[in-house]
Amino acid sequence: MIKINQNYQKLPGSYLFSTIAGKVREYETAHSDKTVIRLGIGDVTMPIAPEIIRVLHQAVDEMGKAETFKGYAPDLGYSFLRETISEKDYRQRGCRIDADEIFISDGAKCDCGNIQEIFSTDCRIAVCDPVYPVYVDSNVMAGRTGDYDKDLGRFRDVIYMPCTGETGFVPQLPEEVPDLIYLCFPNNPTGAVMTKGQLQEWVDYANEKGSVILYDAAYEAYISEENIPHSIYECQGARTCAIEIRSFSKTAGFTGLRLGFTVIPKDLTADGVRLWDLWARRHGTKYNGAPYIIQRAGEAVYTPEGRKQIEEQISWYMGNARIISDGLRSAGYQVSGGKNAPYIWLKTPGTMTSWEFFDLLLEEVNVVGTPGSGFGPGGEGYFRLTAFGNREDTIEAIRRIRNL
Amino acid sequence: MIKINQNYQKLPGSYLFSTIAGKVREYETAHSDKTVIRLGIGDVTMPIAPEIIRVLHQAVDEMGKAETFKGYAPDLGYSFLRETISEKDYRQRGCRIDADEIFISDGAKCDCGNIQEIFSTDCRIAVCDPVYPVYVDSNVMAGRTGDYDKDLGRFRDVIYMPCTGETGFVPQLPEEVPDLIYLCFPNNPTGAVMTKGQLQEWVDYANEKGSVILYDAAYEAYISEENIPHSIYECQGARTCAIEIRSFSKTAGFTGLRLGFTVIPKDLTADGVRLWDLWARRHGTKYNGAPYIIQRAGEAVYTPEGRKQIEEQISWYMGNARIISDGLRSAGYQVSGGKNAPYIWLKTPGTMTSWEFFDLLLEEVNVVGTPGSGFGPGGEGYFRLTAFGNREDTIEAIRRIRNL
Repeated sequence: MIKINQNYQKLPGSYLFSTIAGKVREYETAHSDKTVIRLGIGDVTMPIAPEIIRVLHQAVDEMGKAETFKGYAPDLGYSFLRETISEKDYRQRGCRIDADEIFISDGAKCDCGNIQEIFSTDCRIAVCDPVYPVYVDSNVMAGRTGDYDKDLGRFRDVIYMPCTGETGFVPQLPEEVPDLIYLCFPNNPTGAVMTKGQLQEWVDYANEKGSVILYDAAYEAYISEENIPHSIYECQGARTCAIEIRSFSKTAGFTGLRLGFTVIPKDLTADGVRLWDLWARRHGTKYNGAPYIIQRAGEAVYTPEGRKQIEEQISWYMGNARIISDGLRSAGYQVSGGKNAPYIWLKTPGTMTSWEFFDLLLEEVNVVGTPGSGFGPGGEGYFRLTAFGNREDTIEAIRRIRNL
Repeated sequence: MIKINQNYQKLPGSYLFSTIAGKVREYETAHSDKTVIRLGIGDVTMPIAPEIIRVLHQAVDEMGKAETFKGYAPDLGYSFLRETISEKDYRQRGCRIDADEIFISDGAKCDCGNIQEIFSTDCRIAVCDPVYPVYVDSNVMAGRTGDYDKDLGRFRDVIYMPCTGETGFVPQLPEEVPDLIYLCFPNNPTGAVMTKGQLQEWVDYANEKGSVILYDAAYEAYISEENIPHSIYECQGARTCAIEIRSFSKTAGFTGLRLGFTVIPKDLTADGVRLWDLWARRHGTKYNGAPYIIQRAGEAVYTPEGRKQIEEQISWYMGNARIISDGLRSAGYQVSGGKNAPYIWLKTPGTMTSWEFFDLLLEEVNVVGTPGSGFGPGGEGYFRLTAFGNREDTIEAIRRIRNL
């Protein structure tokens, strides 16, 4: 008689963004006359840049001719893309990351969800609170978190690292030593950043304790200030303790094209085994590569023309971020983020819970955001808005919220 | 101190096709004057059909305009594709499979590798021997197989179902009752098929014992004879015991585009829980959808023009299959498969092992095939050739082998 993976039953409710989508769908069905503005899930709205579209067409044509047709991609991804990433994202920032330490994938969400598989189920994980739900949920499914404590809103065996306004939403080194530490900076959901000095402390801590840091750098393209690391490999010693995960979703609007990558330095070992070998084995066994045409599109992101166009998009989105931050701040809201990240993190008014504020915005002014508590109990009383809307909608949404 | 998933260490050697690729690369480097013909890994060689290319261009253009740009795809995949599959692959064959029982993914290999996650690690799996390595390896990684017995070439806790020439390479119902039964028909690697009557026995067995069948139907488009089921849902009662996995890779040459799907009927439960809910949760948490443009390409496969073009491709490949089968048979080889499947399964000459024959073909006549023993000890003394080469290469490869 077959039995299920009971760990799935420990997950409270459904995946956050599925819940939000359901609530919005329900509202829209009941109120078809209303125009709902979405500043919630963090999906981009600008079309793919012209240079990338040009390259996509070119790659599609290659797939249509026998001489240039491409079947299965190489296990780790095409070397044209891995070489480009190694050079442009790493060597040019002074980080030694070789092309064959880069694993191309169909997105950072998959990599964030799957990476835990190569570690023992005994490992203790540490996450920020609030946190992107995938880190925790994928570990729940693997049986690494223990049961969910409803009263605390937390899993018993997870080390939560509170990120509060007092410390600029940056976590402190935990007292209990974790094996796996999930860090995401610029941060989702708070938009907070770590300085290079702060991140160096984490690298030193991980090397000292024998922990591994999973560094999610999906938003590095939004960094506008100096001294904020774009990669954890800018820190001394990161090659022996850190895995980095990157995405093209927010960098170049690839949410619907699907492309990301994971970096595992060959110096990184556990139990005397290279983590690179384990991840390569997983790639070879359970994955079959990102589409050729999408990998070519990824390469185009790094060309001078592609780069110029996506930088314009990013600065346009960051214009939205300013409109949101300034508009809410001048209306008396307490606001952070939005400077080196596309996320704006605001305190809900008075004693309102995150979901109460979600419902209020949805029902009263038809604006969709993300309740902070959806990212963990530390997010209670906060709310996330994203800079990815179009300009008109963003202005209108803020106008509506100000008139609440 | 971090620890690794020790189950990975139980895997003997590397992933089969990575090993082959390595051997071929080595040979080619040492003998740059030789022209190696690949009839090994099962990658297609014909370009994407013109109608699908046309639709890809159209979808790329949509991604380049704000009005038609698509970001994150719906969790289960776009309904235009799921509705089409439900109608064309299932309802038109008399199977009731609803659109929302279909989960679009980036390929059958990923789905085959990931599906085991929703079951308990206590489950006993049964696989054919020989077998597509992903079924076993993904369960090894999850700790479901016990240790590898080098002498037997088998994992201690896996139920192996021998598929020999005596039974037409079709397995018998196992004596020990498994929880999870992997079946792939038309079969990779043997090219064997099951009749509807034979498959019905498995469905009845699974329903009686409370087992779940993972039915890999990646090669159904190659079925040319009547009374061979294209889907397990053609059998009575399959909705309560079977998950079906399908691929566009061999149907329409999508190995480099990446598209597949998994069907989980809502009637299928274990421990009182719908497996549909578990897989939906996994999709929502660890996956972010196949690219929009690829899903549109998948839809085009079902249009009259697309269908016509891919049917021409398939019949062309099956022409290769006949060339291989007939050529080898008339040279005295014992050959099966190649009639309802793109794989030809041949007995190695005399007492030669599969790898000895691999080396012989590579070194003496520069033809790459796949050693049968790479699919399990039951494949020892056999060898797989694929019909996916181009015509000229296929003819030349067979000419070379005949001259051995």
